[in-house]
Amino acid sequence: MGLKRICGWIIRKKAIGRVVIIEVSSDRVKPYVVVLKEEREPELYAVGKELDVGTALCFEGEEAQEQKSVRGIEYVARKIEVYAKPIEPLPVDTMGKVPALLDTRIKYRWLLVRNPVEKAIFRVRSAMLAAAREYLSSNGFTEVQTPKIVAAGAEGGATLFRVQYFENEAYLSQSPQLFKQMLMAGFTRVYEITPYFRAEKYNTTRHLNESWGIDVEQGFINSLEDVLNTLENLVAYIIDYVSRNNAEELEVLGVNLRKPSTPFKRLRFQEAVDILRSEGIEVSDTEDLSDQAEKKLGEIMAEKGHDLYFIVGFPWSSTGFYYMREENGVYTRKFDLDYRGLEIASGGQREHRYERLVEALREKGLNPASFDFYLEAFKYGMPPHGGFGLGVERLLMRMLGLENVREAILFVRDRVRLVP
Amino acid sequence: MGLKRICGWIIRKKAIGRVVIIEVSSDRVKPYVVVLKEEREPELYAVGKELDVGTALCFEGEEAQEQKSVRGIEYVARKIEVYAKPIEPLPVDTMGKVPALLDTRIKYRWLLVRNPVEKAIFRVRSAMLAAAREYLSSNGFTEVQTPKIVAAGAEGGATLFRVQYFENEAYLSQSPQLFKQMLMAGFTRVYEITPYFRAEKYNTTRHLNESWGIDVEQGFINSLEDVLNTLENLVAYIIDYVSRNNAEELEVLGVNLRKPSTPFKRLRFQEAVDILRSEGIEVSDTEDLSDQAEKKLGEIMAEKGHDLYFIVGFPWSSTGFYYMREENGVYTRKFDLDYRGLEIASGGQREHRYERLVEALREKGLNPASFDFYLEAFKYGMPPHGGFGLGVERLLMRMLGLENVREAILFVRDRVRLVP
Repeated sequence: MGLKRICGWIIRKKAIGRVVIIEVSSDRVKPYVVVLKEEREPELYAVGKELDVGTALCFEGEEAQEQKSVRGIEYVARKIEVYAKPIEPLPVDTMGKVPALLDTRIKYRWLLVRNPVEKAIFRVRSAMLAAAREYLSSNGFTEVQTPKIVAAGAEGGATLFRVQYFENEAYLSQSPQLFKQMLMAGFTRVYEITPYFRAEKYNTTRHLNESWGIDVEQGFINSLEDVLNTLENLVAYIIDYVSRNNAEELEVLGVNLRKPSTPFKRLRFQEAVDILRSEGIEVSDTEDLSDQAEKKLGEIMAEKGHDLYFIVGFPWSSTGFYYMREENGVYTRKFDLDYRGLEIASGGQREHRYERLVEALREKGLNPASFDFYLEAFKYGMPPHGGFGLGVERLLMRMLGLENVREAILFVRDRVRLVP
Repeated sequence: MGLKRICGWIIRKKAIGRVVIIEVSSDRVKPYVVVLKEEREPELYAVGKELDVGTALCFEGEEAQEQKSVRGIEYVARKIEVYAKPIEPLPVDTMGKVPALLDTRIKYRWLLVRNPVEKAIFRVRSAMLAAAREYLSSNGFTEVQTPKIVAAGAEGGATLFRVQYFENEAYLSQSPQLFKQMLMAGFTRVYEITPYFRAEKYNTTRHLNESWGIDVEQGFINSLEDVLNTLENLVAYIIDYVSRNNAEELEVLGVNLRKPSTPFKRLRFQEAVDILRSEGIEVSDTEDLSDQAEKKLGEIMAEKGHDLYFIVGFPWSSTGFYYMREENGVYTRKFDLDYRGLEIASGGQREHRYERLVEALREKGLNPASFDFYLEAFKYGMPPHGGFGLGVERLLMRMLGLENVREAILFVRDRVRLVP
């Protein structure tokens, strides 16, 4: 046991007779319940009695021998130091008893993280990233950083944010795609944890305009299976890591998380189309699945016992220029990983043969000259490679059963939010 | 020993009589030296004889019992699989025997990382970040991500890149300053490893327009010393970690790295000014030190045995609005950390009192209304806090004795470079 110093904010205060109970939110998810009795600690009781919810303080104390509170960890205090007092009543309930609208939760996220539920989400988020790094670095992936201000976008112009870069027009990077591929000329495996910037005008529960991803590229592959294996093992590792290391967070969130079994089901794109059509859903043979079709497929797969499943072999007409095409020319080695009807990752095997890549750019109506800096990297012994981008917010959303992707990021950038 | 599979690129090939020696660059810094003898392995010898520098291959083999090569780790191969051949002669020497100009090194970085020296730099970079995360997470800092597209800049408008965010004008974040401070309303300690975007027109060996930082904020501090301690311990931890874990990289780079002793020397700003003046350098009492003055001070401090030293208490006239001022109003609690004459980190104790913060914005000629989203966070129990941003490239540059900050980042964004 011993004396411990804990700092945080009062999120609840209750006076019963000559006892004051204050609940202090610190970095741990469950609050510290400090019981102050006039009889036992008259000076601290006098201090505590006057403190408001929102007060920032540190206390020294030890865990109570008898833990009577169901709300948190009970402490007996020896010392209290007040660091700051609120100058206005709090605009939200940091206990979370009064549920706030999503809009309010987003606006006051920095304050609501005092609430055990909000804090739990962001502690799991940080654990997810630690897990991803642990898995990737122990599997030989080197961490890299690639530029966010770029001259050309991997996915084409429509969803690029424009940046004025001195006298030049530039863009914000949609993904590290082109750069991590170039690095396959000198590293066998790389990863980057990075922001994605996408100027999509969607206003849905699954889209953000600034989101984060775990971006991976792997060289010297023998087939797409090598990439699928890396991704399914990474996701299983993350989920397992959180289930082992974040029991308190999961308890507060009421989430029961279990390591998914691998391998995940592989569904050919055409199989997915057939399944959806047999359920009366209209699906195109040549376009990406709509959000609605993805959701429906998620329900069907869940019934068959598959929460996580790959859709492999998207048609060339629906993909970026850099995916490797099958010999028939119709399908590619692009895949999605879906988690209960939500695309959480996208990737594939890339075209690593220079001539075919130039051809692919032309077929997609892009000007190879704009991609010279990228094409150059395919001339000097570019091995077969593939990779993926795994969406941090979307994975977190599904792991924790959140309803809106906006609940999974501290500060939201969407169609209408540029502040805070 | 046992059979091992290693993938990489041929960076050197030598034929002596009926022996071919190929050097393969993989993710390890030192190359693998594969000796193929016609007598011993006639089939592999026939394959190896025809391969060019730049070929991407995997080989299976085991470490030679007798290690005769001084260049790398000698292997006896059992199998060779070729994954890709160069379609043009390499534009640079990936062995690094023919030294390239910095401009060429930057252009072909993705290819030159096959070179042991270039690879060593980026392996140390990735180790640095792992070390930083290890230190910070084991000291109770929660990893966070804050937005890169922002409505207002922490340092004011002159060095902001403009972004068109749908119908709004926005900016790229110069630093997570405002956001990590807001998070001090709900976390006691946070950190973020993040890109910085600064539209500075400098063209020097120490400036980049897109760089990376280890950004830290710490609440419930009792004085600036708490922040200085975190930073000096973090830097000492990183240097020690690299010296323990990257011996091969340091050997290839010819760098002798030793854990610096802590605490680092603390120099008052006014002391620094006095020292510089006594050496005949013109320095202002009210402005930040020039690069030239910083360099000179570095020489003077090095003579006194201080490679790393803080300059503490910059004048209010030279700092951002958010630093806490001393009671005299002239000096602030802003500090720099310099490493042999180069500023590698900057930080301080912040003003956490709402009324004084509003006053500070006004005094700096900024409109408090533009900072409403930020000021709001100071109303509900904001504890005293402080933090810093530690420049990844600058720290790496000094640790490895690099001459130009552009050597410390894979893809350079500067006054003239937007590609690759």
